[in-house]
Amino acid sequence: MSNPIITLTTDYGTNDHLVGVLKGVILRIAPNATVVDINHNVVPFDVLDGALTIAAAYRYFPARTVHLVVVDPGVGTARRPILVTADQFYFVAPDNGVLSLIYERESAVSVRHITAEHYFLNPISATFHGRDIFAPVAAWLAKSYQTEAMGEEISDHVRFALPRPKAVGSTRKGLVLRVDTFGNLMTNFTAEDLQGAGADGKINLQVGGKRVEKLAQTFAQGAAGEPVAIVGSSGFVEIAVNKGHAARVLGVNRGAEVILEVGSA
Amino acid sequence: MSNPIITLTTDYGTNDHLVGVLKGVILRIAPNATVVDINHNVVPFDVLDGALTIAAAYRYFPARTVHLVVVDPGVGTARRPILVTADQFYFVAPDNGVLSLIYERESAVSVRHITAEHYFLNPISATFHGRDIFAPVAAWLAKSYQTEAMGEEISDHVRFALPRPKAVGSTRKGLVLRVDTFGNLMTNFTAEDLQGAGADGKINLQVGGKRVEKLAQTFAQGAAGEPVAIVGSSGFVEIAVNKGHAARVLGVNRGAEVILEVGSA
Amino acid sequence: MSNPIITLTTDYGTNDHLVGVLKGVILRIAPNATVVDINHNVVPFDVLDGALTIAAAYRYFPARTVHLVVVDPGVGTARRPILVTADQFYFVAPDNGVLSLIYERESAVSVRHITAEHYFLNPISATFHGRDIFAPVAAWLAKSYQTEAMGEEISDHVRFALPRPKAVGSTRKGLVLRVDTFGNLMTNFTAEDLQGAGADGKINLQVGGKRVEKLAQTFAQGAAGEPVAIVGSSGFVEIAVNKGHAARVLGVNRGAEVILEVGSA
Repeated sequence: MSNPIITLTTDYGTNDHLVGVLKGVILRIAPNATVVDINHNVVPFDVLDGALTIAAAYRYFPARTVHLVVVDPGVGTARRPILVTADQFYFVAPDNGVLSLIYERESAVSVRHITAEHYFLNPISATFHGRDIFAPVAAWLAKSYQTEAMGEEISDHVRFALPRPKAVGSTRKGLVLRVDTFGNLMTNFTAEDLQGAGADGKINLQVGGKRVEKLAQTFAQGAAGEPVAIVGSSGFVEIAVNKGHAARVLGVNRGAEVILEVGSA
Repeated sequence: MSNPIITLTTDYGTNDHLVGVLKGVILRIAPNATVVDINHNVVPFDVLDGALTIAAAYRYFPARTVHLVVVDPGVGTARRPILVTADQFYFVAPDNGVLSLIYERESAVSVRHITAEHYFLNPISATFHGRDIFAPVAAWLAKSYQTEAMGEEISDHVRFALPRPKAVGSTRKGLVLRVDTFGNLMTNFTAEDLQGAGADGKINLQVGGKRVEKLAQTFAQGAAGEPVAIVGSSGFVEIAVNKGHAARVLGVNRGAEVILEVGSA
Repeated sequence: MSNPIITLTTDYGTNDHLVGVLKGVILRIAPNATVVDINHNVVPFDVLDGALTIAAAYRYFPARTVHLVVVDPGVGTARRPILVTADQFYFVAPDNGVLSLIYERESAVSVRHITAEHYFLNPISATFHGRDIFAPVAAWLAKSYQTEAMGEEISDHVRFALPRPKAVGSTRKGLVLRVDTFGNLMTNFTAEDLQGAGADGKINLQVGGKRVEKLAQTFAQGAAGEPVAIVGSSGFVEIAVNKGHAARVLGVNRGAEVILEVGSA
């Protein structure tokens, strides 16, 4: 049988020992686990960014993977640690909505409030529950997959809806959800939102006071410095500049408004 | 039996191939080793920062873990490579004090000058001993755990004491040892240094010309923008801002003076 | 038998989920693979920087390692995915020259155009071939090592020559190929290019309007703030400042001209 896999998604950054400590804790409990980093540079304290990150990645892992997601501005408060069981995957996280997109995309999930304190490190710090609660629970889970042992099922877990574009006159107003490493702007428009716009390779988007008029299939179809729209690998419409940095070219950042003109398409 | 574990702590950063090469060298010698990154963004050439990093992490790993620590401003000079054996762990590092906190915290250590050149890569460069000396030694060690084969015991290894707060009148003067990813300031005050200060949740710290008056249990207890003190997960007093960046709020950095008023507490 | 090893070299950065997704895809296909990061901070879209990175690292890994190199400004276009078999190693990459230094350094290579689409993810996106094509091919290869199954041999693969220093009068003009984490400038001069210059520890290099006059054996031989030349661990002449940052001291960056005075040496 293969080794169990545990993935890590956090806002711990990569300038500290924090991620290394999570791995040590996991390996003490589950020495055969394969630990895989998904991203440690989630925007600090940003639960939505964490939700987008795990949503974009979790399905590409083997069945039975345990996904640990620690974006936890409420560490040490009464917010609950939870264990979510979906069809093929497990998730361990604080109950602050960081798994909202999992609830949205997975048809049947069970959510448990993790109360099995005998699995936690002792003592438990007030500031590093990744080390003291979440990592040990993920490791014990990856040894046995006995979810019932972790606590009772709940139904009042925290969840939020991804902000959706709104119809305003002949337009739809959306926004930039993330800026990726290449400077591409991931918007909250999906392919379906385009409603026929872009069928002829033309589109009418406005962002940062500038217009984006080409719906490209590949980054390379953009002319030098020209921002183009493209349906990205996560299913969202992205605005990109071929071999360039769209966020800098357009002078916008996360949260910027994106207006899709539907009437003229 | 589980695979041997080797951890890496360096100032190599993550913009180069250097860390990847260490792992390649290790896997050629010990193909079953599990290699875990603790931190590669130790402040360049900063032996104290390296010492703090490995001290905060090493105990969370399984027994028999080999901790490789390469912060090595004297690479290529006469400074010795050493192997340190503690109760449960092994450390391979240059003899420049980077293991000082290990000597302080572990009751019985043996220190050996690594001279077994047949374990080194050949030829040995003058500038990349991580690749040519430290990684191969760690890998061979993780195959056999035969420390005697690496060289003779020594007792004159380099060590330094962590800078401690000093009593000055009714105050104790300490400093900021590190700034973490979230901007939290890790000071060199420990819980014991508070000497009763903070028993009522109040404290009187000055840093960057500003006052810190609350001793919090969790980050979330701070009001928006308010710097609070907290005993952090590594045992040191930290100054933090709830969902904020204390270093920027207070306008200070590593090395900044921190004054604890004891009389008024 | 040991687990197969797959290394990753990309320009994906470490602020996104992209690298994590590559690892998930690999582990679904080859659950026992050990995946090792070489560098994900290759300069974005920069094929030469990718070529230098993999060239500096690949030989340090165990025989049969599969090196995945994804620096791919032409993703989604007609540029081919290729599989290169060298004496001890395999390489999977886009056919854009990123393996040029492998062709130069390995005596006998076979290059195949990867056309075995049944190994690809389905559907294939137009923007994330690392996930949809390169990672699955690397994983399948690491299970079987059957290179013939991936596609036909080709001989018209893209390659470029590393820019070489040029003789101009009594000088040789070279350039800065990379700036490493420590700020060291890696030039395109090799030890052979020095042609006797530096035999006495003296050298005459000009870069950024300043002169470099010492050829050092170790970084520590430089005086405080003094830029020195040194034959680096990758075989190229580097310009470094002892415990300092040569790029900042000299005010230069990648691409800067470096002039070696041969006559006066």
